[in-house]
Amino acid sequence: MSVLALSGGIGGAKLAAGLCRVLPPGELTVVANTGDDFEHLGLSISPDIDTLLYTLAGIDNADHGWGRREETWTFMGALETLGGETWFKLGDGDLATHVERTRRLAAGEPLSRITDDFRRRLGIPAQLVPMTDDRVRTRLRTEAGWLDFQDYFVRRRSSPVVREIVYAGAAEARASREFLAALADHTLSRIVICPSNPFLSIDPILSLPGVREALRCTQAPVVAVSPIIGGQAVKGPTAKIMTELGLPVSPAAVARRYADFLDIYVADEADADEVADLAVPVRLTRTLMLTPEDRQTLATAVLAAPGRGL
Amino acid sequence: MSVLALSGGIGGAKLAAGLCRVLPPGELTVVANTGDDFEHLGLSISPDIDTLLYTLAGIDNADHGWGRREETWTFMGALETLGGETWFKLGDGDLATHVERTRRLAAGEPLSRITDDFRRRLGIPAQLVPMTDDRVRTRLRTEAGWLDFQDYFVRRRSSPVVREIVYAGAAEARASREFLAALADHTLSRIVICPSNPFLSIDPILSLPGVREALRCTQAPVVAVSPIIGGQAVKGPTAKIMTELGLPVSPAAVARRYADFLDIYVADEADADEVADLAVPVRLTRTLMLTPEDRQTLATAVLAAPGRGL
Repeated sequence: MSVLALSGGIGGAKLAAGLCRVLPPGELTVVANTGDDFEHLGLSISPDIDTLLYTLAGIDNADHGWGRREETWTFMGALETLGGETWFKLGDGDLATHVERTRRLAAGEPLSRITDDFRRRLGIPAQLVPMTDDRVRTRLRTEAGWLDFQDYFVRRRSSPVVREIVYAGAAEARASREFLAALADHTLSRIVICPSNPFLSIDPILSLPGVREALRCTQAPVVAVSPIIGGQAVKGPTAKIMTELGLPVSPAAVARRYADFLDIYVADEADADEVADLAVPVRLTRTLMLTPEDRQTLATAVLAAPGRGL
Repeated sequence: MSVLALSGGIGGAKLAAGLCRVLPPGELTVVANTGDDFEHLGLSISPDIDTLLYTLAGIDNADHGWGRREETWTFMGALETLGGETWFKLGDGDLATHVERTRRLAAGEPLSRITDDFRRRLGIPAQLVPMTDDRVRTRLRTEAGWLDFQDYFVRRRSSPVVREIVYAGAAEARASREFLAALADHTLSRIVICPSNPFLSIDPILSLPGVREALRCTQAPVVAVSPIIGGQAVKGPTAKIMTELGLPVSPAAVARRYADFLDIYVADEADADEVADLAVPVRLTRTLMLTPEDRQTLATAVLAAPGRGL
């Protein structure tokens, strides 16, 4: 079976890693959000692609939830001495990804080709595809004015109240060729919306021209996994943003955002009452992924959930 | 007394560090060769400036003769995994210098201002000045064709036979303002040509318009220290290049290259016979710098050598 997963960083990457383990090599395509991408210290940084690269390769730093394991921090210390900006932490090994990506982008290579090369060199048996090779940037209108994503998320630790979120450039961007090819693949047996932040990770992907329509029209069942468990997000500002945007912090509210294309919703068994009234079929399971086994168990449940018309 | 030193990397940096120790703060200006500068992995790298920064700050790696002490190498390992170029070794801490310099150059700052900021942040009490803010690149015509300096020096380990050396861009470059100001300073009491490679480190500086003339005309005594001891260079390809260019490998041959502006020549006591016939006054001393004390002893000898007319 051929599976397409849409993912942001940490939570999505865990499920993607689970899917990668339970599916035969080459059957999984993971599309990464690039709305978080930014330029820092002259380097082109793609946080969600990197978290997916490291998590799928098994070299992610589980303690931090970002970056690489067995990392060193000599660069940051030296940079601080020289008066450089240190609010965005770049490990020494992580830096190789940014420096080499920046070099290859400057030489004219598309992000998708660079990403594909990196995932092969890291021994990842799944396809890993940026949502677009064009420039899309998530920007937030907050009580502190308009902020770039990383300024909001890292520098200000998601603390300003969010009023509005836009994906600058998305309307003019083109979904990457590999993403479009996967959406059009007639052998596609499942599309998985990973338990990533709906506003900051999934919506940027959905905002690309044609993507939402393709999800509505595809014959493959679309399965989304709730990023909300027991009224909270496992990590990150999802719950805070939902509150600020006037939404209830519930798995049902997330499902309703995907209502036009969703076929199956996977929510945590703790939230049975919360999703009882949804129009879409719901599968309840344990969705918290603390161990590698949890990831594979959830992946298996996602793939086993009954499809459209079943 | 106000002292101006012209220097390349390792040997020159050792004497510069000795001068910095024996002179009162603010009395020393070190002009660095930038003919070795190059772009690698998208980063602007200035090897001689960096060796001077690290050596003057006391954080140089004495074992390697380049780079920083207490360095880590996580970046290079990760870069190799991603298929990046690894022939030029960049330590994790060293990388901060290149990344921050590259960022500031791209923002429009001149190399001289960036270098001055770095040396202050590293606590260096001497001025450290690039020879120029313009682009000069040492290139070598060899048996293997024309080579960029780092390709010759690092990638090919100085092994191709050298036929000719040019300093591309030097004729159109302008010596940095601080360098010109130091040359014109009427309180200048000494100009020191450090024991650096005459062809690869000193000649690029001398090739800038007006520099050689200023050395000829200055009232300050010009003292050069031989980079050759007992028919050998302490480090690097100086002796090999002299042979390939048809010069005798002797301190006298180096002194003759500086004959038009040289007032005093400092050679090793082992080479008394070699320099006996020189027209310029010679001071013999121990020139090999193995310890910090050696650097200061040589610096004191250089400053004590009798001046023009004495």
